[in-house]
Amino acid sequence: MEFKISRDFIVQIEQLISENRAQELENLLQDVHFADIADIMDELDDYGASYVFKLLDSEKTAEALLELDEEVRVKILKNLSAKEIAEELDELDTDDAADIIAELPQSKKEEVISELEDVEHAKDIVDLLRYDEDTAGGLMGKELVKVNENWNVLTCVKEMRQQAEHVTRVHSIYVVDDEDRLKGRLSLKDLLTTSTKTPISDVYIKKVDYVKVDTKDVEVARIMQKYDLEAIPVVDEMGRLVGRITIDDIVDVIKEEADKDYQLAAGISQDVEADDSILELTRARLPWLVLALLGGFISVKVLGFFEPAMKLHPELFFFTPLIAAMGGNVGVQSSAIIVQGLANNAITGSIVERLLKELSLSLLNGIILAAILFLGSYYLLNFEAHIGITVTVALISVIVIASLNGTFIPIILNKYGIDPALATGPFITTSNDILGILIYFSIARVILGF
Amino acid sequence: MEFKISRDFIVQIEQLISENRAQELENLLQDVHFADIADIMDELDDYGASYVFKLLDSEKTAEALLELDEEVRVKILKNLSAKEIAEELDELDTDDAADIIAELPQSKKEEVISELEDVEHAKDIVDLLRYDEDTAGGLMGKELVKVNENWNVLTCVKEMRQQAEHVTRVHSIYVVDDEDRLKGRLSLKDLLTTSTKTPISDVYIKKVDYVKVDTKDVEVARIMQKYDLEAIPVVDEMGRLVGRITIDDIVDVIKEEADKDYQLAAGISQDVEADDSILELTRARLPWLVLALLGGFISVKVLGFFEPAMKLHPELFFFTPLIAAMGGNVGVQSSAIIVQGLANNAITGSIVERLLKELSLSLLNGIILAAILFLGSYYLLNFEAHIGITVTVALISVIVIASLNGTFIPIILNKYGIDPALATGPFITTSNDILGILIYFSIARVILGF
Repeated sequence: MEFKISRDFIVQIEQLISENRAQELENLLQDVHFADIADIMDELDDYGASYVFKLLDSEKTAEALLELDEEVRVKILKNLSAKEIAEELDELDTDDAADIIAELPQSKKEEVISELEDVEHAKDIVDLLRYDEDTAGGLMGKELVKVNENWNVLTCVKEMRQQAEHVTRVHSIYVVDDEDRLKGRLSLKDLLTTSTKTPISDVYIKKVDYVKVDTKDVEVARIMQKYDLEAIPVVDEMGRLVGRITIDDIVDVIKEEADKDYQLAAGISQDVEADDSILELTRARLPWLVLALLGGFISVKVLGFFEPAMKLHPELFFFTPLIAAMGGNVGVQSSAIIVQGLANNAITGSIVERLLKELSLSLLNGIILAAILFLGSYYLLNFEAHIGITVTVALISVIVIASLNGTFIPIILNKYGIDPALATGPFITTSNDILGILIYFSIARVILGF
Repeated sequence: MEFKISRDFIVQIEQLISENRAQELENLLQDVHFADIADIMDELDDYGASYVFKLLDSEKTAEALLELDEEVRVKILKNLSAKEIAEELDELDTDDAADIIAELPQSKKEEVISELEDVEHAKDIVDLLRYDEDTAGGLMGKELVKVNENWNVLTCVKEMRQQAEHVTRVHSIYVVDDEDRLKGRLSLKDLLTTSTKTPISDVYIKKVDYVKVDTKDVEVARIMQKYDLEAIPVVDEMGRLVGRITIDDIVDVIKEEADKDYQLAAGISQDVEADDSILELTRARLPWLVLALLGGFISVKVLGFFEPAMKLHPELFFFTPLIAAMGGNVGVQSSAIIVQGLANNAITGSIVERLLKELSLSLLNGIILAAILFLGSYYLLNFEAHIGITVTVALISVIVIASLNGTFIPIILNKYGIDPALATGPFITTSNDILGILIYFSIARVILGF
């Protein structure tokens, strides 16, 4: 049922813009969802995007602004006066408005804030600006419905109606004491089915999940996901209710975190998209490639060191890419499982247990693969048995070492507060390449004696 | 504020179980959230898990059942009679109950269904069983609040109260016609603030997002995420409202999909966790390793083919792991960006445009890396310039080909309905290894002439 933005539709819009047929364009876009408006604006050139933005009313454009690619948004905002930006922000929830203000240059920030019409809204936004982006404080919004534990149901319903004016979706009704400290929550159902004179303190649920303002965003995501929450209240250091986080913001956190881990595993170090500029993509990809190249220098050196073996056993050198690749692949598998387990808090037991398990697993895999390699090298590639034995022993050793390496490094990084996802991808592959070649030729020297 | 399950806590529970101090254990677990109960049961042995399960009342254990590791759940369910299982399911929402029934053996399925107390609930569950797990039908629940467009606000509120009995969280009030076809939605706010005699047809919102029963789960996730929805109604082929999907189920879909892509990129072909058995982990990891090994055989063959070069230019063989690794790394980077773009529907433009962009990008990266390689091989590794030139030219070529390969393959797979994530990881690395070595030595032969 989704509205599909076709190439034709974009062309039609571009046509209307270039001929300045504003009314027709407005009619065309009238029923289009703000998320699709954002997609359309992302596709248009700067002039076109601004044209569409100015054509539509701020109720729609404000929400679209949030969904735009950051670079498009920056360009649009640059062309707007502080007053125009403030008009957009007046339409948004506090957390979204704060996110947009945070992207503005310092001087414009203050101007925009002073232009905000609703003073309460402005205060809330300013308050939100002081929290770190990646904490509960940075995610939360101020829109919530709260009632005092000393009220009765009737007062409560009246107050709630008033508060709900500013709240699009009521997730929960929070109960606070006179000091604004979070005490519990009320279910809408209980409220509707209880006599109006009942004091709130008699009906509210005293058990309520909450997070603190400085809880990390990924931790909030994990808690909300684990406990199936659609909203969670946020309290400050003194336990006072200061905001709430809704699940839609958490969905974004989960998605971003997953994308980041995926990119790190593939050796991409910044949050980039396929449609980003070549320069941005290069910046994200080149550092890992340089690292891999420098690792490659070491492997050249190591192989050079074993040059004397070349005259006696040239075949050994045919197997280096195979051995190195297997070490790389096994290492990435091991580290990926650990990184994912750490992210999902699913790693239990000690490091030693974990390494022992990985050891048995890699021995099992290694022996099966070594058997295939031995048979392959003998029957398929027609190498002599002693070469087969050498590469087979080397393969098992490399697989075991690579998988222990892939398990150990992320756990250690995590222990010291470094993102373990950094250890996947090119880092593991490169270090296992070098290690693999070294192990391979050392074993060959022992077995074949050169 | 989350309840942290410590090792000590588990030991304490094991102690209470072994000494059969049921009452104390019950007190200890009284305030523990069902998601934590599930975590605790996952840690206990079979006897302990069953003990805890039977100790607590079904209101809590039913929800915990959903959160358990599948293998623990299977064991627990095996020890329960059909009647006992039915008691658990009576506590659950229809979608969750259907998920658990779907895991039961065929014979037990029917027994359990016949034991369900609430006939309406049972009917709904049976209805849900016929949808594919990975479609909107498989995700949806039957719990929703719907009103007829011909009612007035008063009838509506009365009916709603009754319906809401079975619905834990009211996300939206859906409006249907006499044929049960979805017409729109009602906001709770409007309902509360409109005079009781107003006909519903005057106040409801005619625009409502929905999905069809056969929409794929990842598509539902994309739509709900894009449009920031917390619930979406599901309609059948005739437009009749048959269920609703809530965001908490979608969060699971997003997480699972991300985990799957991540694992595929790392060469793990099944959904496994670090705590799964060695056999399961081997099954998930071995197939890709075998594939990589067979690819390795080809690289051995290719290198063997170039053996004559060894006498003249042994140094060439020192560089093979470096060239192969660079090809692999670049290929994984390219394919990861494309796979992610395809998953997020962010790939616009034609394949040709995409390949041209990747070409410029890889040329840029390739030239920078080749410069480093040339300097490194000359000054750092002390090779002659003509060797440096050979590996440099080869590196640029390999990088360009590998990145085009990494871009092209996922796009083609996607075009033919195959999961493009399959193309990342060992598949791309292995094919680029072989291609890289072939290109490298072919170029060397042209430049150095052997």
